[in-house]
Amino acid sequence: MGDNPLSIHVVNKMGYEEFIKSFGNVVEHCSLCAAAVWRERPFRDAENLASCFGDFIDRLPISGKEGILRLHPDLAGRLAQAGQLTSESTREQASAGLNTMTEEERQRMTNLNKRYTQKFGFPFVICARENKKDAILRGLGERLENAPQTEAITGANEVKKICRLRLLDLVKPDSQLNSPL
Amino acid sequence: MGDNPLSIHVVNKMGYEEFIKSFGNVVEHCSLCAAAVWRERPFRDAENLASCFGDFIDRLPISGKEGILRLHPDLAGRLAQAGQLTSESTREQASAGLNTMTEEERQRMTNLNKRYTQKFGFPFVICARENKKDAILRGLGERLENAPQTEAITGANEVKKICRLRLLDLVKPDSQLNSPL
Repeated sequence: MGDNPLSIHVVNKMGYEEFIKSFGNVVEHCSLCAAAVWRERPFRDAENLASCFGDFIDRLPISGKEGILRLHPDLAGRLAQAGQLTSESTREQASAGLNTMTEEERQRMTNLNKRYTQKFGFPFVICARENKKDAILRGLGERLENAPQTEAITGANEVKKICRLRLLDLVKPDSQLNSPL
Repeated sequence: MGDNPLSIHVVNKMGYEEFIKSFGNVVEHCSLCAAAVWRERPFRDAENLASCFGDFIDRLPISGKEGILRLHPDLAGRLAQAGQLTSESTREQASAGLNTMTEEERQRMTNLNKRYTQKFGFPFVICARENKKDAILRGLGERLENAPQTEAITGANEVKKICRLRLLDLVKPDSQLNSPL
């Protein structure tokens, strides 16, 4: 959880500019999601807020789901090596052990990422907080076999998991619309 | 037109990261549009590129159209007065004469903008390069009467006009996929 998680009451009182500032990166580099979801307030709790983001992603056409994936950095890729990831991505990739790969593991991931991006036209996205590096490497190899449309949906579902965990960092999970917490 | 407009051949050879960097703000603060549209390449010419952006905006659910509007600054509003608009918005608002309003005009626009945002939950967006300040003030008053769903679509159609003019600044209008220009 973040240092100063918000109560759902505070979230529900936000104007859209403040809401976008607070939640504009729960979907990496895609503030449109927060900008769209604001209309669904009041939110019952953090999980309901996460569902609203998930529903918006689900309703996007395939091109939009692919677009969301293209706004993500390569896992353990160039941005990470250059230290230019968002703070959220840096923390998530570290939790999966991606910052302590051996040279051989890094090379394998680079090669798989390259084949993946060439095949699909968007980068491999996986919820790093729910997977360690071995599972990620295995997942990359397996998902390379998917059909493009299937894979855009699989990737978007991972985005939804990342988004939910980021929201649970930002909003108190036990804060409810109808309770005075 | 911009200083160094691109030929459509150069655009069609861009990887998605370069494409998003070049066209990520043709829809204000909404790089998802460029990220989604990249899959439609090769583009025939600048107008075809603009149509692809327009089609993507059309296919968004109403919540997404509203979200795009929420990523726009208030016309002649706080950001403009603080000099924090994107360079594209600064130029466009100046072309409509919004930077030379009298105090009375500015007050009228502020009041109308406030009523508009309160009613619809998103800011008033109009293609400033196709309208002078009198037409904009009149449009604001008229569009305040619209139903919310109608107005989200009207606003999104203005976003498409702004987007097209920004693209025609960036890409040579006479450069064609099937000609060696």
